[in-house]
Amino acid sequence: MDPSQVKIPALADLTIDNITENVIRINSLNPDPRMKYILERLVEHLHDFARETRLSTSEWMAGIQFLTKTGQICTDVRQEFILLSDIFGLSLLVDSIDHPKPAHSTEGTVLGPFHTHEAEHMSNGDLMSKDDKGEPLLVVCNVKDVQGKPISGVTIDIWETDSSGHYDVQHADRDGPDGRCVMTSDDEGVFWFKAIVPVPYPIPHDGPVGQLLKKLGRHPMRPAHMHFMFEKSGFDHLITALYLKNDPYENSDAVFGVKNSLIVELGKVDKKTAEKYGVDEGIALMTYDFVLVTEKESFNLRAENSKKALEKLGRRVKIVEGLPVPDVD
Amino acid sequence: MDPSQVKIPALADLTIDNITENVIRINSLNPDPRMKYILERLVEHLHDFARETRLSTSEWMAGIQFLTKTGQICTDVRQEFILLSDIFGLSLLVDSIDHPKPAHSTEGTVLGPFHTHEAEHMSNGDLMSKDDKGEPLLVVCNVKDVQGKPISGVTIDIWETDSSGHYDVQHADRDGPDGRCVMTSDDEGVFWFKAIVPVPYPIPHDGPVGQLLKKLGRHPMRPAHMHFMFEKSGFDHLITALYLKNDPYENSDAVFGVKNSLIVELGKVDKKTAEKYGVDEGIALMTYDFVLVTEKESFNLRAENSKKALEKLGRRVKIVEGLPVPDVD
Repeated sequence: MDPSQVKIPALADLTIDNITENVIRINSLNPDPRMKYILERLVEHLHDFARETRLSTSEWMAGIQFLTKTGQICTDVRQEFILLSDIFGLSLLVDSIDHPKPAHSTEGTVLGPFHTHEAEHMSNGDLMSKDDKGEPLLVVCNVKDVQGKPISGVTIDIWETDSSGHYDVQHADRDGPDGRCVMTSDDEGVFWFKAIVPVPYPIPHDGPVGQLLKKLGRHPMRPAHMHFMFEKSGFDHLITALYLKNDPYENSDAVFGVKNSLIVELGKVDKKTAEKYGVDEGIALMTYDFVLVTEKESFNLRAENSKKALEKLGRRVKIVEGLPVPDVD
Repeated sequence: MDPSQVKIPALADLTIDNITENVIRINSLNPDPRMKYILERLVEHLHDFARETRLSTSEWMAGIQFLTKTGQICTDVRQEFILLSDIFGLSLLVDSIDHPKPAHSTEGTVLGPFHTHEAEHMSNGDLMSKDDKGEPLLVVCNVKDVQGKPISGVTIDIWETDSSGHYDVQHADRDGPDGRCVMTSDDEGVFWFKAIVPVPYPIPHDGPVGQLLKKLGRHPMRPAHMHFMFEKSGFDHLITALYLKNDPYENSDAVFGVKNSLIVELGKVDKKTAEKYGVDEGIALMTYDFVLVTEKESFNLRAENSKKALEKLGRRVKIVEGLPVPDVD
C-alpha cells in the first residue's frame, strides 16, 4: 500500500495506562458509528480485564488456545461458541436486552442450539413426539395480547427432546424430524397438542466448554423444559420455554435459562378434559397463557431502557436504527 | 449424573441486573482461587460490555460467527487469535504487565507469530540473511545489566523478514531457516552479525482479522523492525524488537509494537569500523545497548504493580505463585 495514504492518528509511546485510548483512537476511523461504539467498549473492557487480573503471558496463551479449540470443534450442526456464551449467561443477557418484556407479558429465554427449520406443520390435537417410551402429556395453551385479547394466526414453533434427553438432530440415524412441530393459534388464540413430559438433559459436554464446566465444578445439566417460539407480524418475536416445577436442576441450569414466570406445575387430565381432548384420563397436563407484546411496544421499551442505561453511564445517547450510539454533537 | 450431587448455590430469578452476580456465584465452586478471580473479572466485563452497548441478538450472532471463523482459519503455522489479540493491543498490554521493566532497562514488545525454534547458532561476524536483494546491514550490540556491567553468555534469538517483507516460514518452497539465528554474547557482553536492512510488511490479512482491519479503515502494515529475544538464567526473559526511525508506519503499527525507546536511527559504517568488522565502508549500521533486568527484580516489580493496581480497584490482594488473587480473609 501507499504509505502516504496512512490517515491514522499517530500513536503515542505505548504504556499499560495509555494503550487503551490509543487503540480506541486508531479504531475511530471506522465510518459506522454503531460499530465504533461497540469496539470502543470492547477494547476498554478487554484491556481492563487484563489490567485488573494482571494477566500473565501463559494465562493469555491458555485463553488463545481455548478459543482456538472452541472454534475448531464447530461444525454445521455444532456451535461451541454459542454454548460458551450460554454457560457464561451472555445469551440470556442479550435476549433480555434485545427483547425487553413489559410487566404481565411472557418473558423470553435462551434459544439454545437445537431449533431447526424442518419441523412439520401440525393441527390442534396432533401428536408431536413419536417416542413411545415418553410419558404422555397434553398441552393446552392460549396466546393473548397484554390487554388479554386472544391473538389468532400466530405461528408457534415447539420443540423438545425425546425421553432419553436427546433432540432428533442428535441421533445420527434419525429418519426425519421428531419432537418438534409448527402450529398456528386458532380463532380463540388457542393451540393444543399431544407430546411427552420433558426430561432434564446435559448440554453437549465432550468439547472445550464441557471441560471448562468440569474445571469450574459445574454440571452440564438443563432442567426439563419445552421450547416455544412465537411469530406474528406486528408482534415482537418471542423465544421462550416452559420449565417443570421441582426439577432437580431447576435452580442450577447450566445455561441460565430458567425464569420464575416460566416455571409450570404439571396437572393431571380429569375426566371432563379427557373427553374434551380425546386423551386418557390421568395423563399429565401442561397449560399456559402466553402474552405477546407488540413490536412497537418492544421497540419503545428497548429504546427507553437503552437511554436510561447510557445516561447512568454518563453518556449522551442517540438511537440509530433502533440501537444506541453515543451522541457526540 | 446424580442430581443430589448438585452443590451449586441456587440461582435467583434472572434479570439484566442480577445475572452477573449469579453467574459469578455459580462459577465460585472452582477450587483454583486464581482462575476464580480471572473468571469473575471476565464475566463482569463481558456482561458490562453487553449492557453498555445494549448488544442486539444479530450483533451477538455476528460476533459468534466472527470468533468461529477466526478459530477455523488457525493451523499449525497460522494463529489468527494471536493476530486478533495483536490488533486490539492486548498482546502488548499483557507483555507490559507480565514483564515490567524498571527505568533504564530495555522495554519489551510483541513476540509476533513468526518466531521458530529451528534457527542455526551463529558466531560473531556471521551473516544471518541469504537474501542478496536486501540492503547490507552491520549490527553491533551490547548486553548489560542495570548497573552497566556487561553480561556474557546470554542466548539471543534474532529474526527478520527478507527484502520482500516475508519471514522464511511464509515461503512454501523454502529449503531451511533464513533471516534468523541464535547467538551468544561474548565475554564483553557483545554480539555482532551481518544482516539486511529490515523493511515494512503487512501482517497476514486474508482472513477474518484482515477483514476486520479493512472494515475499521485500518491498514495491516508493520513498520520495519528486527526481533530480539534474550535468555539467561537469573534474568527476566526479554522479548523485544528494534524499529527503524522514520519508517512510514512508525506511528501506526497495526499491532501496536513500537515504543520510543526501541526506535533506532541507522548509521553508516565508516572506514575504521569497516576495517574492524570486515565489511564494506558506507553500508548501513545498527547499534544498540540492551539492558536486562534480573528475574528477582522483575518479579518484585510485577508484584508491586499488581498490588497497587488492585488497591486502586478497592480490593485487598494476596500474591499466589506470583500472581494476584483477591484476599478474602
